[in-house]
Amino acid sequence: MRTQVCIIGSGPSGLILGQLLSNAGIDNVILDRVDRDYILGRIRAGVLEVGAVELLDRVGAGVRMHKEGLIHDGFELSFSGRRHRIRLKELTGTSVMVYGQTELTRDLMDHRDATGGKTIYDAANVTPHDFDSAKPYVTYEKDGVTHRIDCDFIAGCDGYHGVCRASVQDKGIQNYEKVYPFGWLGILADVPPVHHELIYANHARGFALCSQRSLTRSRYYVQVPLTDKVEEWSDDAFWDEIRRRLPADVAEAMQTGPSIEKSIAPLRSFVAEPLRFGSLFLVGDAGHIVPPTGAKGLNLAASDVHYLFEGLQEFYADKKTAGVDAYSQRALSRIWKAERFSWSMTMLMHRFPAEGEFGQKVQEAELDYLSSSTAAQTSMAENYVGLPY
Amino acid sequence: MRTQVCIIGSGPSGLILGQLLSNAGIDNVILDRVDRDYILGRIRAGVLEVGAVELLDRVGAGVRMHKEGLIHDGFELSFSGRRHRIRLKELTGTSVMVYGQTELTRDLMDHRDATGGKTIYDAANVTPHDFDSAKPYVTYEKDGVTHRIDCDFIAGCDGYHGVCRASVQDKGIQNYEKVYPFGWLGILADVPPVHHELIYANHARGFALCSQRSLTRSRYYVQVPLTDKVEEWSDDAFWDEIRRRLPADVAEAMQTGPSIEKSIAPLRSFVAEPLRFGSLFLVGDAGHIVPPTGAKGLNLAASDVHYLFEGLQEFYADKKTAGVDAYSQRALSRIWKAERFSWSMTMLMHRFPAEGEFGQKVQEAELDYLSSSTAAQTSMAENYVGLPY
Repeated sequence: MRTQVCIIGSGPSGLILGQLLSNAGIDNVILDRVDRDYILGRIRAGVLEVGAVELLDRVGAGVRMHKEGLIHDGFELSFSGRRHRIRLKELTGTSVMVYGQTELTRDLMDHRDATGGKTIYDAANVTPHDFDSAKPYVTYEKDGVTHRIDCDFIAGCDGYHGVCRASVQDKGIQNYEKVYPFGWLGILADVPPVHHELIYANHARGFALCSQRSLTRSRYYVQVPLTDKVEEWSDDAFWDEIRRRLPADVAEAMQTGPSIEKSIAPLRSFVAEPLRFGSLFLVGDAGHIVPPTGAKGLNLAASDVHYLFEGLQEFYADKKTAGVDAYSQRALSRIWKAERFSWSMTMLMHRFPAEGEFGQKVQEAELDYLSSSTAAQTSMAENYVGLPY
Repeated sequence: MRTQVCIIGSGPSGLILGQLLSNAGIDNVILDRVDRDYILGRIRAGVLEVGAVELLDRVGAGVRMHKEGLIHDGFELSFSGRRHRIRLKELTGTSVMVYGQTELTRDLMDHRDATGGKTIYDAANVTPHDFDSAKPYVTYEKDGVTHRIDCDFIAGCDGYHGVCRASVQDKGIQNYEKVYPFGWLGILADVPPVHHELIYANHARGFALCSQRSLTRSRYYVQVPLTDKVEEWSDDAFWDEIRRRLPADVAEAMQTGPSIEKSIAPLRSFVAEPLRFGSLFLVGDAGHIVPPTGAKGLNLAASDVHYLFEGLQEFYADKKTAGVDAYSQRALSRIWKAERFSWSMTMLMHRFPAEGEFGQKVQEAELDYLSSSTAAQTSMAENYVGLPY
């Protein structure tokens, strides 16, 4: 088989890129090692920057998002028993969209199917080849047969554990990493959110987050030690703990219910440089990971796709390589700023026992300063809604 | 002897407080364990916030400062070989004043002498007594005789190593501290400053700062390991090292010369809570220390003095204790914000080997973001010129 762009990974970044390419008349195939239901079973992010919303509209997959998604004009910080609202819309002119990654992925898959895009699921042993040369290709196995796809470019949209970054480990890639000494214990429950906006809580017992997927589905988190096991956390223990970390009025108003999903996720910052190796591009989680504080993961994948698509479009329309040549540098410039923001919001809101009581006091001082400074609030808000592409 | 306020320590905070009290007709005595020349021999800070400048004007000791001091409307950040100016005046409406602490102390001492204020130098074994009671007093020894000063209040302006904080260690004081894993090697030299404003440099080899005391006297610093000894650093080695950490144009323009003073200072963040114990108040360095990045030490001493004087004035004029009762909380609220700023600027600009390459990249990303965001620049600028009293 031959295509112009072979996309490895059928998550949001692969799907958005594929749709942008298809809409521009650039032939592409998406390969995924698992099937559609497996992908849709993953619980992921839920806050979209305006840039990501615009990309979804551009590819024509934003209809249900605009109907069912929730526009948030602000979020709250809770600390020292107080609540302070960051007025995103007032400070930046833009808002964010709360819409679960699962729903967004479903919309993109449906749209791809409806527009005749080709996706191959259950493709085993997907492997990129010869991307240093002018004739790259990808192989995979399916139904006991090895298949080969010749292409011009390979887009590595296959996540942190994917084959694409693994394929370039001996090609001068540099990895930057920070692992945080805790995880997030998250619960998904069909109860109305305690507040119409998100609440990020700094508390001496640890971070807590009141998030949501819809008006009837809540997503709550508490910081836990990495040694905790999810089996040790009953639903009741979770609800008790999150209430302790929230201001009294929020804790009292919280509706609880059985968890639909409950898991512990570690927190990590990670960036690989560069993001291009010949005709292979690393996109989204394949090239970088942010801790979930500030919800930048999916949004960074979207901006990567934007830069890569611009390069590919220019290549096919004008035979120019400036855009693909600039992909790594352009994407990384924005990635590092979002890494910086995710890191700083993580550092600001979590308990770091190694930082001692001075660390906790400095966090409270920063939150106190933030709540008194329009400049500091604007800086936080402009990062939260997303820096310009 | 009897006075209304006994001030321990004849540095800038004790002198400003004494002058404010004298001007308001409140009797005060300053005690210091060393003599005038010893105090004036200490090389200290050199950047004054507008609030400190106003205090000096208010006490009548600002004449020479306005004549000889240099108004700085901005400062520069250097990183990744680039320079970015933080436009203090444009962003905040205010500037800072560069005027050496030594000069300022001399002006305050001269003004105290001229207005008949009483200072006792070379007072040995200064000790505050009974400050939990309604009848506090201070003892000291001089010329072989023990003296006693009865007073209403004791102001502990005697620095980090002074007797005042040491006297309350068993009275429920809580200390918060962070020690940084490096020091500043500083040189004072009679050469014109390389630039008319300060340059704070982030470099892979470590932090550097181009500062100044006047148009003909420069103060330069480089970050060094705490294991370095000042004897190991020749002047030439210093000049070579600082040039390596600066953009090429700055390094080339730098004039060098023999050092008048050369020393290594460790960096520390420290806050004691509370700052009041009965009739004893901790003021300035006696209660808190900041790392020198951002030049907040002397300026925080000035704001402490402002709050304490307001309380004492109210006490003597209106017989109300609200102001002295609020001193600790009011001062600490501003102190913690300045501690936060000094800590964050220290973290942003220095090499922290333990943070690895990720840490260095995050610093560069923050500086890159800062140089592109008016909100972030405004936040840095408003902290640098000083948050409101």
